[in-house]
Amino acid sequence: MAESPRVAVLGAAGYAGAVAARLLHRHPGFELAHVTARSDAGTRLDAVHPRTRVPLALETFDADRHAEVDAAVVAYPHGAAAPVVAALRERGVRVIDLSADFRLHDRATYEAWYGAHGAPALLGDAVYGLPELHRDAIANADLVANPGCYPTAAILALAPLARAGLLGDVVIDAKSGVSGAGREPTDGTHFVTVGETVTPYKVGGHRHTPEIEQELGGGTRVTFTPHLVPLAHGELVSCYVTPPAGARAGDAPRAYADAYDDEPWVEVVEGPPGMQEVRETNFCRISVHDDPRTGRLIVFATIDNLWKGTSSQAIQNLNLMFSLDESEGLVA
Amino acid sequence: MAESPRVAVLGAAGYAGAVAARLLHRHPGFELAHVTARSDAGTRLDAVHPRTRVPLALETFDADRHAEVDAAVVAYPHGAAAPVVAALRERGVRVIDLSADFRLHDRATYEAWYGAHGAPALLGDAVYGLPELHRDAIANADLVANPGCYPTAAILALAPLARAGLLGDVVIDAKSGVSGAGREPTDGTHFVTVGETVTPYKVGGHRHTPEIEQELGGGTRVTFTPHLVPLAHGELVSCYVTPPAGARAGDAPRAYADAYDDEPWVEVVEGPPGMQEVRETNFCRISVHDDPRTGRLIVFATIDNLWKGTSSQAIQNLNLMFSLDESEGLVA
Amino acid sequence: MAESPRVAVLGAAGYAGAVAARLLHRHPGFELAHVTARSDAGTRLDAVHPRTRVPLALETFDADRHAEVDAAVVAYPHGAAAPVVAALRERGVRVIDLSADFRLHDRATYEAWYGAHGAPALLGDAVYGLPELHRDAIANADLVANPGCYPTAAILALAPLARAGLLGDVVIDAKSGVSGAGREPTDGTHFVTVGETVTPYKVGGHRHTPEIEQELGGGTRVTFTPHLVPLAHGELVSCYVTPPAGARAGDAPRAYADAYDDEPWVEVVEGPPGMQEVRETNFCRISVHDDPRTGRLIVFATIDNLWKGTSSQAIQNLNLMFSLDESEGLVA
Amino acid sequence: MAESPRVAVLGAAGYAGAVAARLLHRHPGFELAHVTARSDAGTRLDAVHPRTRVPLALETFDADRHAEVDAAVVAYPHGAAAPVVAALRERGVRVIDLSADFRLHDRATYEAWYGAHGAPALLGDAVYGLPELHRDAIANADLVANPGCYPTAAILALAPLARAGLLGDVVIDAKSGVSGAGREPTDGTHFVTVGETVTPYKVGGHRHTPEIEQELGGGTRVTFTPHLVPLAHGELVSCYVTPPAGARAGDAPRAYADAYDDEPWVEVVEGPPGMQEVRETNFCRISVHDDPRTGRLIVFATIDNLWKGTSSQAIQNLNLMFSLDESEGLVA
Repeated sequence: MAESPRVAVLGAAGYAGAVAARLLHRHPGFELAHVTARSDAGTRLDAVHPRTRVPLALETFDADRHAEVDAAVVAYPHGAAAPVVAALRERGVRVIDLSADFRLHDRATYEAWYGAHGAPALLGDAVYGLPELHRDAIANADLVANPGCYPTAAILALAPLARAGLLGDVVIDAKSGVSGAGREPTDGTHFVTVGETVTPYKVGGHRHTPEIEQELGGGTRVTFTPHLVPLAHGELVSCYVTPPAGARAGDAPRAYADAYDDEPWVEVVEGPPGMQEVRETNFCRISVHDDPRTGRLIVFATIDNLWKGTSSQAIQNLNLMFSLDESEGLVA
Repeated sequence: MAESPRVAVLGAAGYAGAVAARLLHRHPGFELAHVTARSDAGTRLDAVHPRTRVPLALETFDADRHAEVDAAVVAYPHGAAAPVVAALRERGVRVIDLSADFRLHDRATYEAWYGAHGAPALLGDAVYGLPELHRDAIANADLVANPGCYPTAAILALAPLARAGLLGDVVIDAKSGVSGAGREPTDGTHFVTVGETVTPYKVGGHRHTPEIEQELGGGTRVTFTPHLVPLAHGELVSCYVTPPAGARAGDAPRAYADAYDDEPWVEVVEGPPGMQEVRETNFCRISVHDDPRTGRLIVFATIDNLWKGTSSQAIQNLNLMFSLDESEGLVA
Repeated sequence: MAESPRVAVLGAAGYAGAVAARLLHRHPGFELAHVTARSDAGTRLDAVHPRTRVPLALETFDADRHAEVDAAVVAYPHGAAAPVVAALRERGVRVIDLSADFRLHDRATYEAWYGAHGAPALLGDAVYGLPELHRDAIANADLVANPGCYPTAAILALAPLARAGLLGDVVIDAKSGVSGAGREPTDGTHFVTVGETVTPYKVGGHRHTPEIEQELGGGTRVTFTPHLVPLAHGELVSCYVTPPAGARAGDAPRAYADAYDDEPWVEVVEGPPGMQEVRETNFCRISVHDDPRTGRLIVFATIDNLWKGTSSQAIQNLNLMFSLDESEGLVA
Repeated sequence: MAESPRVAVLGAAGYAGAVAARLLHRHPGFELAHVTARSDAGTRLDAVHPRTRVPLALETFDADRHAEVDAAVVAYPHGAAAPVVAALRERGVRVIDLSADFRLHDRATYEAWYGAHGAPALLGDAVYGLPELHRDAIANADLVANPGCYPTAAILALAPLARAGLLGDVVIDAKSGVSGAGREPTDGTHFVTVGETVTPYKVGGHRHTPEIEQELGGGTRVTFTPHLVPLAHGELVSCYVTPPAGARAGDAPRAYADAYDDEPWVEVVEGPPGMQEVRETNFCRISVHDDPRTGRLIVFATIDNLWKGTSSQAIQNLNLMFSLDESEGLVA
């Protein structure tokens, strides 16, 4: 029997990296070869994140030493990822990058939202890692830019309308659990701050906006407003769509059936999509409603921000890249 | 010294009635004379709701016996309130009705959303009990229809834009704590159902919609979508406004200053308005933002759904009706 | 290849039954043949509990029709289980009973705490389904009485001390998530009631007490006080033990090592055992501390009340009964 | 009319200081003269803690400048408080110290738990600020050591038993909301860490232990174990008492009636004492139960850790010190 591809998770001490490591450790088709972290080198990952039950010691990243793997999941902050990705690519390692560094095709757009880009030459090689939109390209890619959690939900919610010509004016009101803010303790992640309140943030300018617009295409301009809600895991986007004049809103259900009937990880449901139902799974659940008084379509989508919104989607992409069953190691 | 007006709270075993009773019991300008409930007659209110610390026994409502009071707060469900209000008004009691029964001026609109009206003759007498819009009329009213919690927040958020001609297309995405669903245990209020999720409900048709449209005027049509969030008390409305063509969005701050600079219970703030900051107070906190990429205005407003959204607002109205200081008994 | 044993889950609409059905549906060594419920017959289980993703329709239980299976998991309330278990045993079906009906060996003790027993003749056949204590007997049993969630944690916490002669006076202060109270909406499971508080209940007389005392043996008398805490899933027991005079508390660590070093689903850890670390797993995590000022031992144990505390433990037992790997289908 | 005593709150940017400032600002009998903080000087307190609605700017503490007040509430960490308290006392300011620095009468005990003492000469002047035990001494004190939150609840729960000779062996299992851990963001206060779990901490050695033992007297040794629970405000202590041989447990109810029937801020209740019922109040609620099988008494007490557990109790003490009604400014 052939050996399994060996995979490293860089930045495994954060929430996203830890989930990726946990999934790869129990994955029948990959071998988790290394886990790295900026601090905590020498500590076992299951001491930092017992839930992973990964007995590997965290290592300090070294491009030469760690380049012996077949693939790497890079769980670094925006900006910090690009040079590491470049170093890995130079050494022939296939990469899933969880940061925003390679998601935007247009360098100017990237730099307008994030600042100078650390490896612009690679921008053209990257494939946006949303399997439901770019399955074939992902399979052949050496660099996959894994989507952000909000874009995953928003794009899956709206892409069928975009394709069907039903996507006019769009407002996206998103609600996210606190794990989306990362593991670092701040005023904004303190239990007392977060409990019994809902907090909008980055109003009128969240960096996930251009990603959503890029993937929806057609020059769509969205107002995207995230809110922090008092829960740990999960994310809901509520999308308010005014179809273009003359569009037939009645075509919406057909657009979703066409898009998702054969998708293993998208569930289109009648009632409100339940965040608990996708927790610790790779599923995205979507429901589509209309408001007959105003002619609007209202679309909800929910995911686990750390799974389909980040790390289980990375595994889904890895499965595609290494010609495994797309759902291997992701069984709910 | 003149005796204080005597007030009864009907339906004091529910969340809203209990808060009204608690506030009136400690109010220096009123005497809480009676508390009634459909069940639990004979039980003291502080046994059912210890937080109120109201030592009065719950009574079964009797129009004749209880009509000796000067005013009544009626905390009955929609539909059940109208006949009781009518009975009280016939006996000369001034009424604050917390239900929707007298909020809509137009009987047909009421009946389209709620069914047959139980006391249509009184519709013309009722004043919509939002002091920031109708202070003078409330002072002279014998029947005040206290607004719903969502309309209180939404109307306070949007009325300044409506007055300034800035209110075009409107989407309202509301987030409410579970106390808004009432005290009755249901699948939808079970802790396990509500925790770690956000649930949109009554999508495309919540009954609070016509109230909001009536008070904003100008033929405004709003898409209003409430969501249940895992917290007990409080409510946030996120309002997305596309101003009419030609309107000057830059006039918005001035519109809010004009509307609220002199209001004791509305705070216009810079950052996101904090739900914890209004908990168990009569305050509404509002913040106004713009999204320069799309030209939209984004307005947030937050209240405690049981206080400014219901029962402390009822006390504010009672203060006006009996010529007391509007803030008496409401000090935060 | 031989066919997998066929298993029915009776009472699959409740929380515990749903978890059992979910685990069996994805279990490689069993076939989930039937799911039944008192109501909702005809509805698919994944409509009632989407998280299970079990596409089977709920059926009304019929002893003759459903006795074609090899085994049944009975998730009925105390008292209601006994006659159903008897009917299944008469027809040769091996049973895991999740209720308390067959946990106590002594009929008089059962009847003192629960009332008349519905199938006393079977009491002698039942094996207490805690694999760490009764592994061999479970493998050979036709009727396994699956422990309650509190006893699972408490017995695993204290059995090593009992065996080592270190278990003198015992106080158990337990904290449980709300799912332990079942799916039925009540005042006590309402989000507003449960949030921001901790509520002791059944003080001085919880029915799980005699089970704990039976399994610890030696005439131990425990004070057991459960508390409801504002979380959905999970349970912690804090055990305060005064060793008998002359006992050597320093022997405690060795007692735990002896008991659990080879156990696949018990983790003895240094720090406080984390409830999140066992969520949706079959693990029990234990930590042992001493209070040198008073000579007490303090032992904490945590489990997911619906998994190791109920349904994944039932699968662990089924694996033993059908000679599968004890951990099959339970991988974390 | 005489001028109100002027009071400063030192350390007003923390949770405890902010509550003290809020209560003093609206107190009819005191004037809040200054609020200080180590950082944020120049910022208004209502910008840092809007809920206080205190419009004063935070100042950097200066002993000479701020000594013009009649009294000061010192909300500093343990160790940091002592020198500031000494500086204030030298200048004749009456002090309520919220830290542990003056709670223990015995210097050696203090230094065993906290390290070197910064102002040992003042230890003999300090009165332990629990009005229910030391009302008269507080009224005459110039330095009041306000109790810790756990001791407040534990001592109120157990003092009646101690007086009645019913306090033998004692286990205290405490559950506290996250605000008790202070405002600083840490791993241990991160929402994701705290949610859906219960975490014991400082097992076998929490610094509040000696305070409890001092006030209960009689050489009592308690095992005290605090747990962090996923809620923001409030605290419950569950006390397990084995009365001394020969003591009559049946005398317990009378002991509580004697102790608390005339206390304005202690409520002895039948059922479990509700944490929500004391939220943002100065009340302590207590219930007393027995476990006839083991002969134990089980006593629960609940308070708001920031109110009766800290800052409203400080106001209660200030009222006593300045001969005001003990409940002034504390109305629930």
